[in-house]
Amino acid sequence: MSYLGDLLSTVFERRYRKALSEKADDQTTAELCDALLSSQGDVSGVTLARSLLDRYANMTPDEKLGFFEYLATQLEIVPDDVQSTIHAYCAEKNRTTYSAFASACEPKRQELARRLNQVPGATGELVSMRKDLLKLLKARPELEPVDVDFKHLFASWFNRGFLVLRPINWESPADILEKIIAYEAVHAIDSWDDLRRRLKPDDRRCFGFFHPAMADEPLIFVEVALTKGIPNSVQALLADERVAHPAEEADTAVFYSISNCQAGLAGISFGNSLIKQVVADLSHELQGLETFVTLSPIPGLNRWMSQSGLEVQAFNTQALAAHYLMEAKRHDGMPYDPVARFHLGNGAQIHAVHAEADTSDNGRKQSNGAMVNYLYDLSQISQNHEQFVGEKSIAASDAVKTLSASVAAHA
Amino acid sequence: MSYLGDLLSTVFERRYRKALSEKADDQTTAELCDALLSSQGDVSGVTLARSLLDRYANMTPDEKLGFFEYLATQLEIVPDDVQSTIHAYCAEKNRTTYSAFASACEPKRQELARRLNQVPGATGELVSMRKDLLKLLKARPELEPVDVDFKHLFASWFNRGFLVLRPINWESPADILEKIIAYEAVHAIDSWDDLRRRLKPDDRRCFGFFHPAMADEPLIFVEVALTKGIPNSVQALLADERVAHPAEEADTAVFYSISNCQAGLAGISFGNSLIKQVVADLSHELQGLETFVTLSPIPGLNRWMSQSGLEVQAFNTQALAAHYLMEAKRHDGMPYDPVARFHLGNGAQIHAVHAEADTSDNGRKQSNGAMVNYLYDLSQISQNHEQFVGEKSIAASDAVKTLSASVAAHA
Amino acid sequence: MSYLGDLLSTVFERRYRKALSEKADDQTTAELCDALLSSQGDVSGVTLARSLLDRYANMTPDEKLGFFEYLATQLEIVPDDVQSTIHAYCAEKNRTTYSAFASACEPKRQELARRLNQVPGATGELVSMRKDLLKLLKARPELEPVDVDFKHLFASWFNRGFLVLRPINWESPADILEKIIAYEAVHAIDSWDDLRRRLKPDDRRCFGFFHPAMADEPLIFVEVALTKGIPNSVQALLADERVAHPAEEADTAVFYSISNCQAGLAGISFGNSLIKQVVADLSHELQGLETFVTLSPIPGLNRWMSQSGLEVQAFNTQALAAHYLMEAKRHDGMPYDPVARFHLGNGAQIHAVHAEADTSDNGRKQSNGAMVNYLYDLSQISQNHEQFVGEKSIAASDAVKTLSASVAAHA
Amino acid sequence: MSYLGDLLSTVFERRYRKALSEKADDQTTAELCDALLSSQGDVSGVTLARSLLDRYANMTPDEKLGFFEYLATQLEIVPDDVQSTIHAYCAEKNRTTYSAFASACEPKRQELARRLNQVPGATGELVSMRKDLLKLLKARPELEPVDVDFKHLFASWFNRGFLVLRPINWESPADILEKIIAYEAVHAIDSWDDLRRRLKPDDRRCFGFFHPAMADEPLIFVEVALTKGIPNSVQALLADERVAHPAEEADTAVFYSISNCQAGLAGISFGNSLIKQVVADLSHELQGLETFVTLSPIPGLNRWMSQSGLEVQAFNTQALAAHYLMEAKRHDGMPYDPVARFHLGNGAQIHAVHAEADTSDNGRKQSNGAMVNYLYDLSQISQNHEQFVGEKSIAASDAVKTLSASVAAHA
Repeated sequence: MSYLGDLLSTVFERRYRKALSEKADDQTTAELCDALLSSQGDVSGVTLARSLLDRYANMTPDEKLGFFEYLATQLEIVPDDVQSTIHAYCAEKNRTTYSAFASACEPKRQELARRLNQVPGATGELVSMRKDLLKLLKARPELEPVDVDFKHLFASWFNRGFLVLRPINWESPADILEKIIAYEAVHAIDSWDDLRRRLKPDDRRCFGFFHPAMADEPLIFVEVALTKGIPNSVQALLADERVAHPAEEADTAVFYSISNCQAGLAGISFGNSLIKQVVADLSHELQGLETFVTLSPIPGLNRWMSQSGLEVQAFNTQALAAHYLMEAKRHDGMPYDPVARFHLGNGAQIHAVHAEADTSDNGRKQSNGAMVNYLYDLSQISQNHEQFVGEKSIAASDAVKTLSASVAAHA
Repeated sequence: MSYLGDLLSTVFERRYRKALSEKADDQTTAELCDALLSSQGDVSGVTLARSLLDRYANMTPDEKLGFFEYLATQLEIVPDDVQSTIHAYCAEKNRTTYSAFASACEPKRQELARRLNQVPGATGELVSMRKDLLKLLKARPELEPVDVDFKHLFASWFNRGFLVLRPINWESPADILEKIIAYEAVHAIDSWDDLRRRLKPDDRRCFGFFHPAMADEPLIFVEVALTKGIPNSVQALLADERVAHPAEEADTAVFYSISNCQAGLAGISFGNSLIKQVVADLSHELQGLETFVTLSPIPGLNRWMSQSGLEVQAFNTQALAAHYLMEAKRHDGMPYDPVARFHLGNGAQIHAVHAEADTSDNGRKQSNGAMVNYLYDLSQISQNHEQFVGEKSIAASDAVKTLSASVAAHA
Repeated sequence: MSYLGDLLSTVFERRYRKALSEKADDQTTAELCDALLSSQGDVSGVTLARSLLDRYANMTPDEKLGFFEYLATQLEIVPDDVQSTIHAYCAEKNRTTYSAFASACEPKRQELARRLNQVPGATGELVSMRKDLLKLLKARPELEPVDVDFKHLFASWFNRGFLVLRPINWESPADILEKIIAYEAVHAIDSWDDLRRRLKPDDRRCFGFFHPAMADEPLIFVEVALTKGIPNSVQALLADERVAHPAEEADTAVFYSISNCQAGLAGISFGNSLIKQVVADLSHELQGLETFVTLSPIPGLNRWMSQSGLEVQAFNTQALAAHYLMEAKRHDGMPYDPVARFHLGNGAQIHAVHAEADTSDNGRKQSNGAMVNYLYDLSQISQNHEQFVGEKSIAASDAVKTLSASVAAHA
Repeated sequence: MSYLGDLLSTVFERRYRKALSEKADDQTTAELCDALLSSQGDVSGVTLARSLLDRYANMTPDEKLGFFEYLATQLEIVPDDVQSTIHAYCAEKNRTTYSAFASACEPKRQELARRLNQVPGATGELVSMRKDLLKLLKARPELEPVDVDFKHLFASWFNRGFLVLRPINWESPADILEKIIAYEAVHAIDSWDDLRRRLKPDDRRCFGFFHPAMADEPLIFVEVALTKGIPNSVQALLADERVAHPAEEADTAVFYSISNCQAGLAGISFGNSLIKQVVADLSHELQGLETFVTLSPIPGLNRWMSQSGLEVQAFNTQALAAHYLMEAKRHDGMPYDPVARFHLGNGAQIHAVHAEADTSDNGRKQSNGAMVNYLYDLSQISQNHEQFVGEKSIAASDAVKTLSASVAAHA
């Protein structure tokens, strides 16, 4: 499909776009944006959009900053128009007044993004564009409204209903697999052989969300190990020399790595949906599975301990980790640990904590080697989630609570 | 894929959704909407969305009206919030103030639609929902703002960049083909045999746009005949007994029928893109093709003649049709004929008019049997389009201009 | 794939085959066969094969007869060569002597068929060729050896390991579905609406075997109804107005029609494998299924009754049908009824017989309206099969045995 | 497809095969073969075939030898039966006598192989079986007739008409790509990065033949470089740091590596068809291509020079290579060089020879660094082929002839 598609668009380009694009080369970026926004129908729109995206791709960092400033200032709402249209709409509610108001409230940069998105491949290019923008925000907070608009658009385009779950395995295309290697954020994949060990054995799975308009780019993926019993060490789980077991014999599915792939989609959450869908898939395929659990890092543990006054020596790592996960909170009452926030927010509960579970340099550094299992119990998820969101109460096994309490008692 | 997907979702439903959906059954529609809008993450959101869509599907017309009134009044913007947030934003431009403003300007019904769209199949159901709404608007103009929001959302979701062009032929799935039979709007398809005559012969083609989230629903499709020379009769073109020619011998591609399929996507235009893409495809595949032309109805001819003072008897149908297409205008200066507006707006030109070209009852009734060829000349399209939009000038062949002038001279 | 493939081969034809095929036009069929058999490598072989197949397709019946006579006489084994090579092989067994023997034993027409099969689409054309041949055999028994060779080749090419099971449903390509309508041999499908009733409802399934080299031609297909309990009437099963049930609620899968599609593959049996594979598929997909059963015609009942001396009036149809299925035998001891031979040979057992089960004209005519359920009990299939093949004993339920005995007692 | 297929067969295995396979475990291999050959229908055949293949897979080399000896001696033709049936057939030619003859001539091991092939995956296992056999032949020439039968069967099964040409690129499944790395026989691929350099750039292509029953195993593949002009150095062609050019700008397609993948298919030639098909594909896709040429090794050059009496010092490498390709012959008059035999047999001609074209150790060793371009000129292929096969005359450019003659004149 894409192969033929490439052929066709190539021919099309040659025969049809040449004149228009030559004209585009003489225009400033602002003129091109104006032209694209005022094009009626898409006779010339596609060519303009392609020219603009190509031009953006070749911009220097300074030129990109200039482009975003143009979006922020020139394609901005006009407050007076908002005022006048909201008055008119309040006076008489009909299609015309409401359209005028809606139009006044939405900066033209949103329509520009939609029009840029007409051309094949544009969706991914727009996601990259926001990635560039995000890097500039700290130094240029005046660009924040532009980011709000991007995020708003992307939340609509990357709606769960448009995403496709695909298994990623050793039969997947190499161009996708090399991205898995690149994007793995939790436990680095150091070679194609390492990748094969995570994808090919019968007791390993991987799934990702994809968007149809970015078919070769995973948005997020999760790596799963099928085991007997709940594991307490990621090094054991990923050992080079381990022997694979038949998937049918597993009773437990372990989510040991979840990686977001697209920096340009920051703030648009897919993880919750992904885990839930994978639980559904796997529980259908392998009816021996009874337990769905993570083996997760505790990235904030050591940072928090160094900030708190706890006398660490008095407690073992396991107890400290349990205590940290149960008790360490942000100002808003939410857990201090970002991974805990994610899984507890999804309705999981803290099932067990393990010392000496990640003995890598990174594992030692962030959590003194401790890891945690978050348990996804479908019958409890909804209730856990509500209580977490509502009362900020954290679901945990009795064992974890007891461990945590042992620290609290002495602290 | 969809087969396995069905299995999975079925299992998933059974194990996970039961408790939640039972709870949903006890709630009012407004309560469900509130719950969906306030759900954080999508743990319960998917279930709520499914419940709400199921409930809508089973509503009586009165209940649907009630639902839309709820959207119009309860999930409406709050003008005071718009006022206060625009003031705050003008005072200080940052992420917080702009987010507050953007949120105040967008009625909650838009977010509701996005959240409903989380579940598989929802996109099509939402398109149907707007179809229901459109029928109510004449009697209930106060619902127009709701439609403006639907249209705004759909324009973003059905952006050209997300559409897929697929050939529709005799190897296409029957469930799509039965929709082609149902949706054909120009020259009715009266049986599967008739359909086969339009799809199977080597000198016939059909293409449609599809959206990935509505994979078995064409959005728009165009039927094409490959011919030697430009045809002047649709009955000859579609004759049951005609002999097919090898596609390779054709020099002309004739677009003889374009049908929009989704009433719920009214106002979101795909036709221009479709024709252009099909021209590109065909010109690549069949390098003998030199001419891309329509054989189009003239739906407004007789209506206009009965309104105008023209003494029809004095002129032949062909000349009258040319005159009508060139000269009959709406108040805004655009052509009176809707099909002419579409093709001229795409940058086509009027190439030829033919009497006795559609001898069906409908053809006689609407245009006294006359039809027209609009020519898509890639080298002229952009210029034609700009002149049409800018100066409202109509591109036409000398022959058509001469014919039209013959009437003008005597009128 | 096939679309692009067509393009490519078309271009290839034009540029490469022209000279060779013009040369081919001047040769006799025998010369073409000689040339194809002596071509080394396939530089010219593909062109010769295509020319020969095209020529065959355009032959009159008499010319086809001539072609088969040529195969029978000119591309025949040479007995003296068989004699001399078997002697040489017995004298010294090595690659050379055995190759010479194998070559002498195989008529050149087999190699001709393999070389014809080089070109795309040839497999189907060769199957059609045998179909033509089969029609001639009664009048021309001297052609039987040619048919033996065809059958031998096809048994190798259409080996179970090369066949693909595909579900056939309302999403299948129309060009395959129109063949289902054409090939249905048991209960005729009278329209596309009728076809949809058999494919689209949730409680209906259809599966076929396909060969990769004849991808749009089913070889055999079976239609399945999912029911609660075992049905006793095909009219009830296929009633237009019946209400479909959710597939998940079914406890029984009923094979109510099995149709072979390719006359040219006569004698190469697929039915046994098909049923077994479908049982496996369905039992995986729908875990509520407990019973796999047919609702089968009894095509030989009335013919046999008119031949036997049974005083029919004394017995009811049901008892007579049971008696016939249990007791009516050919000279070789096998059941007289062809459908019974098929299912009993597969290891099924006679489960129940029903009067008034097929009230169509054909049903009345062949079996006075009686039908039979053959039960596929996976735990018994192997044993049933062995006893049927070995001892010619027929597995049946007690109820059927009792019914049958009631006739025997009085006969 | 394969994913669901796996599920299904797994379930099927569990429920249906258990009893039969347990029984199989108690039988000798000969008993299993007997049982498989005498099974009627495939009720038990599939299980027996699976058991036999599993048993073979676990055999020691000695046991495999024993198995092949069993095939050679116990499943051998019976000469007396051949004699009696050929007599009977000569006496009266009909279906019965011919079938008896055909049956007597074909050793039962052929039918055994066909029955083994019933189970999914068997085709590849049978190809591996022959690979094992081939290794034994030198020491055990009495097994040669078994190999003749294998080869005969495979020639029928792997007929050109059943093969599928597939592009192999950076979007291909990793499990196929790792085989490309493993099977590359001409210019080794030393890493995934190296592989990507051969597959991903716009001016690189790779194509392979696949058989539907061995879908993840290439049979043969060819690597292609798209260039401007004909290259004279493989190191330059494959340089890590080279810059890719747009495919559209190329005028030449260079076949620089052709690798057979399946040792078990030795003697069954795919290369000719592959090259021809790839020429057709590429010439359609890229209409700027004018020249199709190889950059081939000359593997026999140095071996031959050390055997011949030529005083090498007197000539340069280029002239010697030309002379060798034109004049060095086997006893049968065919070229001494195996690669030359292949390409000249396909109808190519010797276009140019280059010194310092392969400066790798292997290139130096086999041909003193010389390489050759064989030209595939579609208008000459057929004539070249016929003259090569018939008169053993070698087509070459004038330049090559002159070079060769310069050596001959002095030799």
